[in-house]
Formats: sequence, structure tokens, C-alpha cells
Amino acid sequence: MLVNNIQLTADGRLRHLLTLEGLPADLLTHLLDTAESFVPTNRQAVKKLPLLRGKTLINLFFENSTRTRATFELAAQRLSMDVLNLDISTSSTAKGETLKDTLKTLEAMHADIFVVRHSDSGAAHFIAQHLTPDVAIINAGDGRHAHPTQALLDMLTLRRHKGDFNQLKVAIVGDILHSRVARSQIHALNILGAAEVRVIAPKTLLPVAIEDLGVRVFTRMADGLKDVDAVIMLRLQKERMQGALLPSEQEFYRLYGLTSDKLAYAHPQAVVMHPGPINRGVEIESAVADGERSLILPQVSYGLAVRMAVMSHLIGAQVPQP
Amino acid sequence: MLVNNIQLTADGRLRHLLTLEGLPADLLTHLLDTAESFVPTNRQAVKKLPLLRGKTLINLFFENSTRTRATFELAAQRLSMDVLNLDISTSSTAKGETLKDTLKTLEAMHADIFVVRHSDSGAAHFIAQHLTPDVAIINAGDGRHAHPTQALLDMLTLRRHKGDFNQLKVAIVGDILHSRVARSQIHALNILGAAEVRVIAPKTLLPVAIEDLGVRVFTRMADGLKDVDAVIMLRLQKERMQGALLPSEQEFYRLYGLTSDKLAYAHPQAVVMHPGPINRGVEIESAVADGERSLILPQVSYGLAVRMAVMSHLIGAQVPQP
Amino acid sequence: MLVNNIQLTADGRLRHLLTLEGLPADLLTHLLDTAESFVPTNRQAVKKLPLLRGKTLINLFFENSTRTRATFELAAQRLSMDVLNLDISTSSTAKGETLKDTLKTLEAMHADIFVVRHSDSGAAHFIAQHLTPDVAIINAGDGRHAHPTQALLDMLTLRRHKGDFNQLKVAIVGDILHSRVARSQIHALNILGAAEVRVIAPKTLLPVAIEDLGVRVFTRMADGLKDVDAVIMLRLQKERMQGALLPSEQEFYRLYGLTSDKLAYAHPQAVVMHPGPINRGVEIESAVADGERSLILPQVSYGLAVRMAVMSHLIGAQVPQP
Repeated sequence: MLVNNIQLTADGRLRHLLTLEGLPADLLTHLLDTAESFVPTNRQAVKKLPLLRGKTLINLFFENSTRTRATFELAAQRLSMDVLNLDISTSSTAKGETLKDTLKTLEAMHADIFVVRHSDSGAAHFIAQHLTPDVAIINAGDGRHAHPTQALLDMLTLRRHKGDFNQLKVAIVGDILHSRVARSQIHALNILGAAEVRVIAPKTLLPVAIEDLGVRVFTRMADGLKDVDAVIMLRLQKERMQGALLPSEQEFYRLYGLTSDKLAYAHPQAVVMHPGPINRGVEIESAVADGERSLILPQVSYGLAVRMAVMSHLIGAQVPQP
Repeated sequence: MLVNNIQLTADGRLRHLLTLEGLPADLLTHLLDTAESFVPTNRQAVKKLPLLRGKTLINLFFENSTRTRATFELAAQRLSMDVLNLDISTSSTAKGETLKDTLKTLEAMHADIFVVRHSDSGAAHFIAQHLTPDVAIINAGDGRHAHPTQALLDMLTLRRHKGDFNQLKVAIVGDILHSRVARSQIHALNILGAAEVRVIAPKTLLPVAIEDLGVRVFTRMADGLKDVDAVIMLRLQKERMQGALLPSEQEFYRLYGLTSDKLAYAHPQAVVMHPGPINRGVEIESAVADGERSLILPQVSYGLAVRMAVMSHLIGAQVPQP
Repeated sequence: MLVNNIQLTADGRLRHLLTLEGLPADLLTHLLDTAESFVPTNRQAVKKLPLLRGKTLINLFFENSTRTRATFELAAQRLSMDVLNLDISTSSTAKGETLKDTLKTLEAMHADIFVVRHSDSGAAHFIAQHLTPDVAIINAGDGRHAHPTQALLDMLTLRRHKGDFNQLKVAIVGDILHSRVARSQIHALNILGAAEVRVIAPKTLLPVAIEDLGVRVFTRMADGLKDVDAVIMLRLQKERMQGALLPSEQEFYRLYGLTSDKLAYAHPQAVVMHPGPINRGVEIESAVADGERSLILPQVSYGLAVRMAVMSHLIGAQVPQP
């Protein structure tokens, strides 16, 4: 709840998007409804709305991610915002300036939204705490903590393709331990009232007390996938693995990789999702990734709409400066 | 003709620009006419037209080229497009994602045009084959294969400064073997009906059966430059040279570098062109590069107009999505 | 005066901004007045004016500076300009092209303003000399020579917070020897008629004959800060230090670092400024940097307004091309 003191205004509007944890269901539904209204925008001949003209978004990437940066940049452009891309790792902090000084300096340039990507859990929260409320922070992934816009786009994907959450059984498969995406998905699914949220992983890739987040835990695909309506595969974060949590990629694929054979355990109409970029033959078989039940590419499209929705909510909650 | 199944629509409009080979003369002329209409745009007080507002162009550079990227970015801005620059070498492919997956992901962001630069011949063609027809591909240079917008701007330069092609004798000089620019120029000149197309190079820098492209081959400047109306020097692609195809830069300059002395073999009003960046004292003498018959800088200006023309043709050929 | 033949038009308008040295007081005042009018723009809901729509600004950074590049990019966006960022060190010059050729090529793309950052003193001046008058050059820092927009934003800060210059005593403290910022500040303060301009530094960090620029020289803070209305701290350019000009950072801080104790020598209402990024505990104590008399963050905001003012003056002085 402490976080919500920061990320919500007194009357419950979204001031920052740091995590989905603790957000009210009607706010999430409202965000998804707004995103829904932007889906056609990205398919029109003129993919641009004057909604946020004269507003500035700064992409503050302390950790490189071309794909995520691109979706935020495009989403902002399609709302007519001005965008500034800053790769902070190679910038002022290299000159010995503290992170806080860098932030205060950027804030003084009167940006409206900072999109923050950082390898440390809690970085976006730290930044929101140290800036004035005139700047809204969007967490674009912080360490193992949260990646709320990714989870929101997954929810939009589920809602558009599977309908109401209260009928849905969803399994999240893979490296739960290191995944900020999984944490945000679990919060989103529970807030939105999913019938059942499952995680499937080897014990070494399960966080301690993960059940407390409101999930059923499985270590075998045959059990965990049974009757689910959606399978969300996680990216195997090779770069995050420390030590020998896994015997090998081949072993992982054999046990947890989503093949047509394993997908057969799920409900016959079950859909397949993945936040990308995918590792073919490690997390997922090509026949499944490219199959007709795969929603991997629609997820990318909905990602634009979701980010546009978040941006317009954040700006809408800002109080005009005197 | 196979390529044209991809790069032309059923009614003959330009869907992708991968190569000039096989394009009809009237389409090239139409592109040059459109480019002509954009030349004044770049000289006006307000250098911007609302023509492609709400369209997105992605610069997909797998091979670094600041200059080429800049001309495409400026051309797109002057048509009011949104532009996203992606340096793919340092991006997702480094994370193990396949090229095709990267492309499908970017396509899902609903871009309208991809500008592709790649060190492999055929890369732009490969990309066009694997995307939906909703995205137009402009080849901004692929290996030794083609660089069609460079050749088109050369054609615009020739037409504006020398008039009708059917009276023109043009010599292309230098490293023909490794030059995608030369290949595109040869196709363009022949399609537009140039009176004579010559290549001048040492035997080691001539592709096998180059005559089949419709050129006269010379190995000595004194012979090849005789009476030509335009001399197009190529950049010596030092980074592309494999092994000892050339004795030395000095030797190359002595035999093939365009000096005032050698230019005297050409027609007295012959113009001098070069795609840039130039290597002074290697391909060309400074007195010639900076002389009054040099069109090297006008070529750059026309490059903007040509790229604007290509972009507007490509968008014009796109079918609105349902 | 030679420089002014380049940077002023025949009727005294600003054609380039290379240095403040030798500019008339009324021109500086006029620039500050214009900047004043842009201060509210950066605080409005819609932070954008259509003033320079259809104009192109190119950030030509031969030396990396994310912060400076960002302020120019934002300032240009807020005047509705198109912006192109070019990192030249990794670009054409690496391919062997001469600087002059790179510049002429960019000029041929019909940009309106080049913002130039370079590690060599005189680089911006060199560039202005070699381009046509159609392109305006803004010096964003060249070697030890000048950083005129930084000094202008400092003047705007002083004028807004301390009023008329003719009552002002200002001390500039630190590495005067290597500081382009200090040189530009000294010129600006003298042109605008400051009551007294002082520099405070160890002898090893004072240029020869610095008194000739119209400053009083002090080597001790206790003497130099006495009764001043403003203290401008300089960044300790560690990367510029050659050899043993300083015993250590600790020693520098003990003698010249701005602490609350030392600030007590100044006038009780004296303000504190710094161009940033600051080195806490080297040039300045955190209590001072974050104190209520610190104008370090307002300086950043005024930097946007000043750059917008310079850009609009430069474009206003351009003669429409035929």
C-alpha cells in the first residue's frame, strides 16, 4: 500500500506506474478499456492522435533494450509527444554525477513522463520518490521486481482473445525466480479475478513462498498445463542466471519447453503467449510459436495500445503547474 | 522478373524498392518526376509537407552508415513521418533472437516503411519476402547487390544537369566488383536508355561477365573516358577488399584516380559525380572534387528529394488495412 | 572583431553564435529578453510553439555530452523543429572523410542550424568559416575556448534572481585554466556591465594574463568571496587535467570547495550557481548544492529557454534562399 501512496493521486488516479501490485481492479479495467480504444489507432492510415501534443517523454534506459524502448517511442509518437532517448549508462553517471543529480537535472527540463528501465529492483520506485509529482514515472522493467506494461498488454491480449477473466485458468511457465514479467502477470491476473493462476518451473527456478502471491505451483508440465486456457512462456533469462540452477538448455527444453506434445495437455482452445524475444528450441518449439494458437505477435501490437493508454492516464492525472 | 513479383503491385505500382533491375522505364521516370517536385521543398523556408503524417518509418541498420541513415531520417521528417532508428547489430539478435523474429516483431508495431541496410547481398529481398505486404521495404544497400536510391539520385542529377538520357555517354570508374552502387547505376542507365554505359577498372576489380549487364568495359582511363558526358567515380571500398586485388592506393590513384589530366579525355562539358564519402587523393583529385564540373554536393541534395519520392510512392501503393 | 564579421549580419543580427566575446550589450540583452518570453512556454500544459516548424537542426557532437545534447534537442522540439543527432566520432570521419567534406555533405541536406560540440578550441569558428551563410552554427562548447549558451543561461539566471547587472559582484571559482564556461561567463558579465567580476583559483589553474579579460584575480576564497552577490562554481574537468596541476581532489575541496563555511564570506543573499554536472565533495558541499540559495536546477530550466531564444534569433537572421 505504501507504493500506492506514490503511484495514485488522492482521488485514485494513476500518477506513476511502478507496479501492478495493490492497484484496484477497476483501475486496471479502465486502463484496458482505454488501451482497447487505441488498438484501431495503430491500424489506421493516419496512426497518430493529437492527444498529448506538446508533452515530452524521456526514455531513461539504464539497461539496454531496443525492443522495449522502441515500443515506448512509437507509442509516444502516436500520441504526438516529443521523445528524447537517453542511454544513461554511457552518460553523466560515467562523469561521476550521482543518479539523483541526473534525475533532478532531467526533471528541470520539464519532461512530463520518464520511462525507466533499470537492472536494479526498486529503481523506478526510488526515482518516483525523489522527483516532484510533475513528472510521471513508467517502470519499463526493474531488476526482478516488475514490468507492469508488459503484464497489462498480456491482460489485454487475454481479454481480447479469451474473454472474461473469471473463467480463465492461466499457467506461467519457466524461470519464475528471475522474472519481473511473471511477478507482474501474477498480480494482474489475481487483481482481475482470474479463476486460477498457476506457475510451472523446476524447484530451482521458483522463488521462496511464491504461493503467497496467489498461485498454484507445479513442477511438471503434464500436471500444470492440464485444462488451462492460456500458457504464458517466460524468456529464459540466460544473462540473469547465476550458478548452476539449470543443468542445460537442452534439459530445460525437454522438461519445460512448450512443444505441440506438451500443449496437448492444455484445453484444446488454449492460447500461447510469450513476452519475447523468444528462444526457439529453448522455451518453445517453432511449430507452437508460429502456430495458429500463438498470440506472440498480437501481444506486440497490443503493447503499443497499452503504453498509449498508460501515458494518457498519467498525463490526465497531472495537475497543471501554476 | 521474380523480384518484380515482390516489388510491384498487380497494377504496376511500387510496393518495395529492392533493386532497379527489371523495373519499367516509365516507373523510373515517374519516380524522378516526383523527386523533381520535392527539390524545391528542401529549399523552402518551411521544409516540410504533411503528406505522410501519421506514418512510421523504421531505419533498420544492420551495417552502420550515419550519412545514409541521416538522409532517410531527414527525408521522412520532411514528409511529416515518425521515425524510429534501430541499430540491430547491438540489439535483439545479440540476445539470440532470429532475424525473422525481430522483423515480425517490428512489423507487429505497425510501421509503414522499413529502410534496410545490410552487409549481405539479398537481405532486403529476404526481408520483403518474409513480411506482410503492409510494410514497404527500401533497400538502403545490401552487400554487393544493390543501392537503388543512390542510383536514382544519380539519375536525377544527370537529368537535371545533362538532360535526356538517350544522348548520354556515362563512365563508371573504380571498384566495380564490390560496388552495389555501380550495379544499380548500370541498371538505371540502361533502363532509362542512356546512349552508352561504360565501366573502367583494373581487371581484378571487374566482375565476371559484367558485359552482360549492358556495358562496355575498359581497363584504361584514356580509352574509357573518351568523349563521355559524365564520369561517376566509385568509393574505394577498402573494408570490402579481400586479399591483394590492388597493388596499393597510390598505384590505383596513378592509374584510375580522377585528376584534371585524366578528366581532359572526357567531353569538355563532362560532369563529375561520386556517391561519397570521397577519398581525396585515392579516387579523386581535390581540384576535380571541388571543381565547377563536380556535382558531388548537388547529388546529396537530390538524395533527399529522391528518397521523399520513393517513400510517397510506396505509401501510395499500400492498400488501406481493413 | 574578426569573429563578429562571421557571427553578425551587416545589420547586426546574429548569424552564428560562436562566442560572446565582442558581441554588443544590446544584442545580449535582446537574447535574454527573448529567452525570458520562453520561460513560461516550458511550464505550460502544451510546451510547444509552431515558431520554427519545417526547420532542421543537426546536433553535431564530436565530443560526447548527453546532457547538453538533450537540452538542444528539447529546445528545438519545443519550437517544432526537426532534429537529427549525429555522433561524428563514430561516423564518416572514421571512414577517412575529411571534416570539411562531412560538413559540406550535411550542409547539402539543407539543415538550418548545426549545434557543434568539439574538443578543439576554434572548431565551431572553423566550421562557420567553411559553410555557406545558409546554415547557422551554435557553439555548444569547443575545447577551452567558449560555451556561449551556457554563459547566456547563467546571465538569465542572474538577471531573474538578482536584478540589474550594474550592481552585481560575481565570483567564478575553480579550474579557470581549462574552462570554456568561465571564459564565456567573463565576457558576458563584462559586456552586460557587471559591477565586478572575480576569479578565484590556485595559481596553477589560472591562465596567463587572465586580468586582461577584465577580472580581479584571487587565490584565496576568504578574500575572493567577500561581499559577492553570486558564486559560480566550475566543474573540475578531471578529464582535461594534464599532469600535476593539483595536489588532490581532497586538497582542492579543502581550499576551494564551496562549503557553508566559505559561503559565509559572501553577501548574505548571495546565490550559488554551477553549470553541472556537479562533483559533490569536490567542488561543492551537498548542503550548499541543495540549499535554498542554490540556483543549480533553475539554471537547467533557463538553459532550455536560452537555447530556444538563440535558435529563433539565428533563424530570424537568415535570408530566405532564392
